[in-house]
Amino acid sequence: MSSSNSSSSKNLKRIAGGVNAARGFLSAAAACGIKRTGPLRSDLCIVASETPASAAGVFTTNLVKAAPVLLSRRHLDSGKARAVLLNSGNANACTGTPGLRAAEQCANAAAVALGIHADEVLVCSTGRIGVQLPLPKMLPGIREAASSLKAAPAAALAAAKSIMTSDSVPKQAAYEVRVGAKSFRIGGMAKGAGMISPNMATMLCVITTDAAVPAAFLRKALREATGRTFNCITVDGDCSTNDTVLTLANGASKVAIRTATEKKAFADALQAVCADLARAIVADGEGTSRVIELTVKGARSEADAHRVGRAIANSQLVKCAWAGSDPNWGRILDAAGYAGAALDPDKVDIAYDGIKAARNGMGCQDAKGEATLRKIAAKKEFSVLVDLHLGKGEARLLTTDLTEEYVRLNLSEFSL
Amino acid sequence: MSSSNSSSSKNLKRIAGGVNAARGFLSAAAACGIKRTGPLRSDLCIVASETPASAAGVFTTNLVKAAPVLLSRRHLDSGKARAVLLNSGNANACTGTPGLRAAEQCANAAAVALGIHADEVLVCSTGRIGVQLPLPKMLPGIREAASSLKAAPAAALAAAKSIMTSDSVPKQAAYEVRVGAKSFRIGGMAKGAGMISPNMATMLCVITTDAAVPAAFLRKALREATGRTFNCITVDGDCSTNDTVLTLANGASKVAIRTATEKKAFADALQAVCADLARAIVADGEGTSRVIELTVKGARSEADAHRVGRAIANSQLVKCAWAGSDPNWGRILDAAGYAGAALDPDKVDIAYDGIKAARNGMGCQDAKGEATLRKIAAKKEFSVLVDLHLGKGEARLLTTDLTEEYVRLNLSEFSL
Repeated sequence: MSSSNSSSSKNLKRIAGGVNAARGFLSAAAACGIKRTGPLRSDLCIVASETPASAAGVFTTNLVKAAPVLLSRRHLDSGKARAVLLNSGNANACTGTPGLRAAEQCANAAAVALGIHADEVLVCSTGRIGVQLPLPKMLPGIREAASSLKAAPAAALAAAKSIMTSDSVPKQAAYEVRVGAKSFRIGGMAKGAGMISPNMATMLCVITTDAAVPAAFLRKALREATGRTFNCITVDGDCSTNDTVLTLANGASKVAIRTATEKKAFADALQAVCADLARAIVADGEGTSRVIELTVKGARSEADAHRVGRAIANSQLVKCAWAGSDPNWGRILDAAGYAGAALDPDKVDIAYDGIKAARNGMGCQDAKGEATLRKIAAKKEFSVLVDLHLGKGEARLLTTDLTEEYVRLNLSEFSL
Repeated sequence: MSSSNSSSSKNLKRIAGGVNAARGFLSAAAACGIKRTGPLRSDLCIVASETPASAAGVFTTNLVKAAPVLLSRRHLDSGKARAVLLNSGNANACTGTPGLRAAEQCANAAAVALGIHADEVLVCSTGRIGVQLPLPKMLPGIREAASSLKAAPAAALAAAKSIMTSDSVPKQAAYEVRVGAKSFRIGGMAKGAGMISPNMATMLCVITTDAAVPAAFLRKALREATGRTFNCITVDGDCSTNDTVLTLANGASKVAIRTATEKKAFADALQAVCADLARAIVADGEGTSRVIELTVKGARSEADAHRVGRAIANSQLVKCAWAGSDPNWGRILDAAGYAGAALDPDKVDIAYDGIKAARNGMGCQDAKGEATLRKIAAKKEFSVLVDLHLGKGEARLLTTDLTEEYVRLNLSEFSL
């Protein structure tokens, strides 16, 4: 869950432009009034490649899958795509067959407007669950967006803004990547602030690249990158029905990803974009006031490390303590104890920003040391290391505290 | 999770007296100043039988077990006990070997003062994790309590009050139970409001009865009763290090539990006491404003029904929606979808107080119906039924909403 390692690589240079950073990609947003209440704001966008692109996706593991997830998975069977249509304000989830038909109609409308095949269009939706899409409002918006596609960074920013729901900021990332004497670009956008939990992306994300990447390798690289980034974040432990990460590679840079070195460079760059966007989602977690980088090491297996990490990162009591600047290692140890992983409480060490709070399962600080720990827990970002001393399993997660503001924001969904 | 069925039985009569309701049981509380801050309040108590009693216990499944849990389990090997020593203000958890020695010293002090063997004393602690017990304060309190034991209901109430931490009310229950021409009594007390989650009791509870019950059957009956009551409640999904349910049966009523009829009567009564106390804990959940009786039916197995029930009952988003009077069936279906149980979203029905909110995985109410559902979700108590229509697995849980007040109360543990 570290973007710094990858992004500090001398082959990776941060650039602007989000989904339009890569050559041959265009985007545009529109305001359709999809939300039932509130002022009109942009709520739909299209990201399109000027030429056919190989494509891959990773989707929610929730058994309740929204219509756009079902449709995009089907359209990805070919390993190719030209455009992604996204909307906020309505998740088109739990909408049954009518919902699936509505998603198909949206994809068709975009395809007609763009002059491509419907199965070259992928779709993503986010917003309220259980409400049918307002097609009469959306179809004109789709045509409007399709007719105003632009390659400018401003268009990418407008697209990133149009998919925000409870997000407070748009989320973009992009890199220029050197491979030998040549270079390609890769960039993306994401949305997400609530209903964020490990095990698939729990948000929407579109990543574009002008590298030429075979679909099979694109799938593999995307799965690995999301496993190390989006699947290692949690805000509230709730895994959404709509989580989608899509990536399109159109080859406009003329850089082909074939050799092991090229594959490594591409995979690193893809992971860097994913890591940046994943961190942006956690930092924007609904009502949260802290980002915690949680590392569990010394677990009997990597799966055990993830179990312990998730139990801690999703514990209401641990998260409340963090919100109160309480470096409560007892609650952390308690959560580790019910995680379902191998654990010897008498061997567990817990540290905040490298300062031990507990050693061998017991507190190890005097009053002065406790005051230091409280100062760390009062910071906006800090690290927590839990060492089980049982094996070599390790997991890293980014998580948040749990604040009164989170509850306030989620008392009702009518505001989405 | 229904006390009404059992307690409305014509053989069960609600009576007063808590842990002193059964004949031959005495109790007393003391104020030792165990908490490091705040005004002096009673924080320790002893519940004792005048004669040796058979005894059984059920303990937390957390791998991090507090010292009193380890000691009480050991003392229960004999199937006998005479007294229970409980304290609030300090959980004696994550305190290592010194903590275990301290628990032993407390049990010894109680045994000396009561004139019984140390291994006849069970111990329970609740409060802050990771702090050693203040023995110099506690030992005089133990002697004081041991010398002031009384059979009066007021003494039982004082004991129930002394184990409160974040509880806002003491929790007692008791029944007179007719078995043929004879009768016995059974009663108990419990504490718990936070760190409450299924899979062991997540709280402290002492149940006394004057029936004569063989230890083996007592163990079996207690395990079954807690499985159906305390293990079916959740406030925040955090399973504690100290959860303990103890029961002592001293035979003072001269009613022996031997035949199948007698065993059924005893098991029903035990479950009624457990159900009353479990409901009292949920109703007193930290900062909560609603009690929700959640039933999951039609699951492929009972285990699947529990998985779905826990995912829903512990979902932050579902709980926040309830706090906002939002009958958000979409969040419920989302949680069911990631529970790890077999599920066909298109078959799921969700109802509030018998009114269908979703049918076949889709909303089924017009604006008027939605208003009715919102009225139900605004009540202090309501039921939610989730029918998966896949099999015969069923689970019933009592849970709460998640409020800003819960977060406020748990920002720091220094107030416990």
